[in-house]
Amino acid sequence: MTTRIDMNCDMGESYGAWTMGNDAAVLQYVSSANIACGFHGGDPATMRKTVAAALKQGVALGAHPSLQDLAGFGRRAMQISPDEAYDIVVYQIGALAGVAASQGARLHHVKAHGALYNMAAKDEHLARAICQAVKDVDATLILYGLAGSRLIEAARDIGLAAASEVFADRSYQDDGSLTPRTRAGAMIEDVEQAVAQVVRMVREGKVRSVGGKDVPVQADTLCIHGDQPNALVFASGIRQALEAAGIEVRTPPPRPQARATSR
Amino acid sequence: MTTRIDMNCDMGESYGAWTMGNDAAVLQYVSSANIACGFHGGDPATMRKTVAAALKQGVALGAHPSLQDLAGFGRRAMQISPDEAYDIVVYQIGALAGVAASQGARLHHVKAHGALYNMAAKDEHLARAICQAVKDVDATLILYGLAGSRLIEAARDIGLAAASEVFADRSYQDDGSLTPRTRAGAMIEDVEQAVAQVVRMVREGKVRSVGGKDVPVQADTLCIHGDQPNALVFASGIRQALEAAGIEVRTPPPRPQARATSR
Amino acid sequence: MTTRIDMNCDMGESYGAWTMGNDAAVLQYVSSANIACGFHGGDPATMRKTVAAALKQGVALGAHPSLQDLAGFGRRAMQISPDEAYDIVVYQIGALAGVAASQGARLHHVKAHGALYNMAAKDEHLARAICQAVKDVDATLILYGLAGSRLIEAARDIGLAAASEVFADRSYQDDGSLTPRTRAGAMIEDVEQAVAQVVRMVREGKVRSVGGKDVPVQADTLCIHGDQPNALVFASGIRQALEAAGIEVRTPPPRPQARATSR
Amino acid sequence: MTTRIDMNCDMGESYGAWTMGNDAAVLQYVSSANIACGFHGGDPATMRKTVAAALKQGVALGAHPSLQDLAGFGRRAMQISPDEAYDIVVYQIGALAGVAASQGARLHHVKAHGALYNMAAKDEHLARAICQAVKDVDATLILYGLAGSRLIEAARDIGLAAASEVFADRSYQDDGSLTPRTRAGAMIEDVEQAVAQVVRMVREGKVRSVGGKDVPVQADTLCIHGDQPNALVFASGIRQALEAAGIEVRTPPPRPQARATSR
Repeated sequence: MTTRIDMNCDMGESYGAWTMGNDAAVLQYVSSANIACGFHGGDPATMRKTVAAALKQGVALGAHPSLQDLAGFGRRAMQISPDEAYDIVVYQIGALAGVAASQGARLHHVKAHGALYNMAAKDEHLARAICQAVKDVDATLILYGLAGSRLIEAARDIGLAAASEVFADRSYQDDGSLTPRTRAGAMIEDVEQAVAQVVRMVREGKVRSVGGKDVPVQADTLCIHGDQPNALVFASGIRQALEAAGIEVRTPPPRPQARATSR
Repeated sequence: MTTRIDMNCDMGESYGAWTMGNDAAVLQYVSSANIACGFHGGDPATMRKTVAAALKQGVALGAHPSLQDLAGFGRRAMQISPDEAYDIVVYQIGALAGVAASQGARLHHVKAHGALYNMAAKDEHLARAICQAVKDVDATLILYGLAGSRLIEAARDIGLAAASEVFADRSYQDDGSLTPRTRAGAMIEDVEQAVAQVVRMVREGKVRSVGGKDVPVQADTLCIHGDQPNALVFASGIRQALEAAGIEVRTPPPRPQARATSR
Repeated sequence: MTTRIDMNCDMGESYGAWTMGNDAAVLQYVSSANIACGFHGGDPATMRKTVAAALKQGVALGAHPSLQDLAGFGRRAMQISPDEAYDIVVYQIGALAGVAASQGARLHHVKAHGALYNMAAKDEHLARAICQAVKDVDATLILYGLAGSRLIEAARDIGLAAASEVFADRSYQDDGSLTPRTRAGAMIEDVEQAVAQVVRMVREGKVRSVGGKDVPVQADTLCIHGDQPNALVFASGIRQALEAAGIEVRTPPPRPQARATSR
Repeated sequence: MTTRIDMNCDMGESYGAWTMGNDAAVLQYVSSANIACGFHGGDPATMRKTVAAALKQGVALGAHPSLQDLAGFGRRAMQISPDEAYDIVVYQIGALAGVAASQGARLHHVKAHGALYNMAAKDEHLARAICQAVKDVDATLILYGLAGSRLIEAARDIGLAAASEVFADRSYQDDGSLTPRTRAGAMIEDVEQAVAQVVRMVREGKVRSVGGKDVPVQADTLCIHGDQPNALVFASGIRQALEAAGIEVRTPPPRPQARATSR
């Protein structure tokens, strides 16, 4: 088991005259930034500023591509074909890579946003299309996806480095999936309990499910939410506790993947 | 004087369910494709298909960034700051570069679209911002701009390779600028006359103005319009006539520029 | 059984610089126009011109609201709440009603577009939300919906006049639903066969299913597709045949509905 | 001179997941709400909620149409034709009127937003197109425009009721126009001074210019900004002071206009 973990957070989700989140503050605590690329939030100016802020803090740059749904913030599932998924992911990674290049930097990872992330976690065709898009644009990028999901499988299948994402503030079910938010006990609001869950996932590769079972889980990167009222307290608390537990917070390295096949 | 010239055409300007232009046919005659990047036309799928078609024909890939105005097709002048121009150009070049990369290719040039092209031709601050954006994303790209305009000056000033664009179907005034379309004699509809104008521009670096004066003009690339009824006839006629006159049609080489300064 | 039927067609689906369809020609044959309202196609200028053209031909004006998906032409199912459906339908009816009012006219009906139409045909909550939106904006409007669908039921439930839509060029299954396009025999390409199907639906209220069964169907309005290659031939052929069979082509009258309840 | 004045404020400018302004609080102090219609801000759900909130407070509903520029919040001047202005204004008034109708209400006025307001204040063709759009959709609506501007002239010319807008927190020049924000002394930050300026405009129809001259000004409605840090303090202070000075705060009545001509 690793004794380190990445902390990632979505950011750059302001748009035009509207602001969202508290990026500057959150950047102090995370190691990876998932930067919106204009389809659900983020505009060219916001992208430039967010990339600059992340670079200043030494935080890794990631593209955060979404369904094309500004009005719904990319949160509404949409019936798209794998080709459509491929195309919008290529476009958005390219756009952010252009912004990064203009500041002399390169992208490090890609994490799909909202409904696209959730859909691809379950749908192998979408998952494959997204991973192929990432690989085709830049084969050195790391795919961030829900631990145990189709996204991680698809990355492995095509030989794309992947980081399995876990949650500190969500409980897990017996099959290793997240407890749906609609059920009682889905959220873990106590910081100590959240930290304990993450520490165990990192050290032992296990999580205690809501059913009381020990379930194996790969914990490469931890999702931090930046847009909630107590987001900063939570992020700062998690980071301190992880470091106090001797767990290093840093970006996942590109890892060779098994079973690589080309498209 | 050169005895060669590039022929460029805007393409990939379909959007979603709507189609525009006759790209497949026009690609047979031109050496450079200016591909829409989603802000005035072009969507991720159209960009993928257009890049693939251009690569298949051996036509050089160029980004064709625009003001963000889908409803107005990027043709309406909009009061934007140089920073805004910089940001939208970086974003759009990046997006198309991502599409190109996904097909193992690289971009060759950038030509601003519509109102952005026209505004920057006259406004040195916008021109500088656009050129700087091009250079910052990829310093090997060539800027296509109206011959004699602020865009060409700005590229020269910052050490970005530039290609001066001329028109076969437009007449020129005594000061070397295009006759405004609102004036009589602005358009040259006779193919022979159009060809003669281009041949002389290429061979002698001169154009006979509507006032009857010989005006110097740099002719690196020729603009071909793809969306007009007789576009193909015109493009094909021009190409044949140029070749018959011993003028080679190919992309401009990156040229070292004088007076380079860094940002 | 009635001996008349309405013929409706989607139109005004051009957008900005892009054109679609052949509205002027189709308007000669139909009695109702479903005019795009800007969310999947149609822009304010196109709406103005389409309303003017329909008024000139004496064709009834209908709003054709859609999911907010310009890139996908409103054809991609999207997971929206009933409230979201309500809001986008109110907005779009209002917008077109404004255009109509500016020309001294009023709207006659509402037909949801693409994925919104299909989703609401099966989902009672979406169907109810759409019907309520129509009724709340203008209780004299007629809802056009798939015959036998949730949309027709919902209109009936809340006391909104409804017109049941049938298809000439689609075959029906034993349960009265359309044969999915993915199955063989879904499309009826022979004009005579199409006409015969419609005539029987109008005169006898029955359709022969692909399984050879006589299925009851309410035929108030017939959907004409305007954007296919032989659209005009088909529309003109259908109209002539209907009239030859003594069936009058005109808009459905507002009909009092049973089981009305208020929201 | 009147001894009453209207207080208006832009609102409903949130969009999707992004919020803006403090509408609920500002609604306590104003008599007219200018509600965004989706082109620079405002989405169908926000429009519904804003209309409901305004109705609850008894505040008059106004449409706040804009250039189609979500990314730029409608603040960037754009070169549009009078026909384009006409069409976008018709569309947006219609959309908001639909939302109002769904709640059993009607619109009271129209105030153009941002760049559209500023452009039309100086350009008689745009001003005329906007006023004609308002009149054509609903001839009972009142046009709110900058006092002394082309908008007010155009409304008068076509027989549309108009309300002349003045500012409490801006100084005036000798010719009655606002001091540009780029100049010193443009803003009046002292509430007492702002109140005194408004009171005099209402009672005497005059304002003391920055050049020390008494300039005539028609003050029918006062613009309140809702999105600034001290907006509520300012709005509340102005309202109290006006009432203390015996000036009634209420919406302007439709006024018959001289020199009416039809289009």
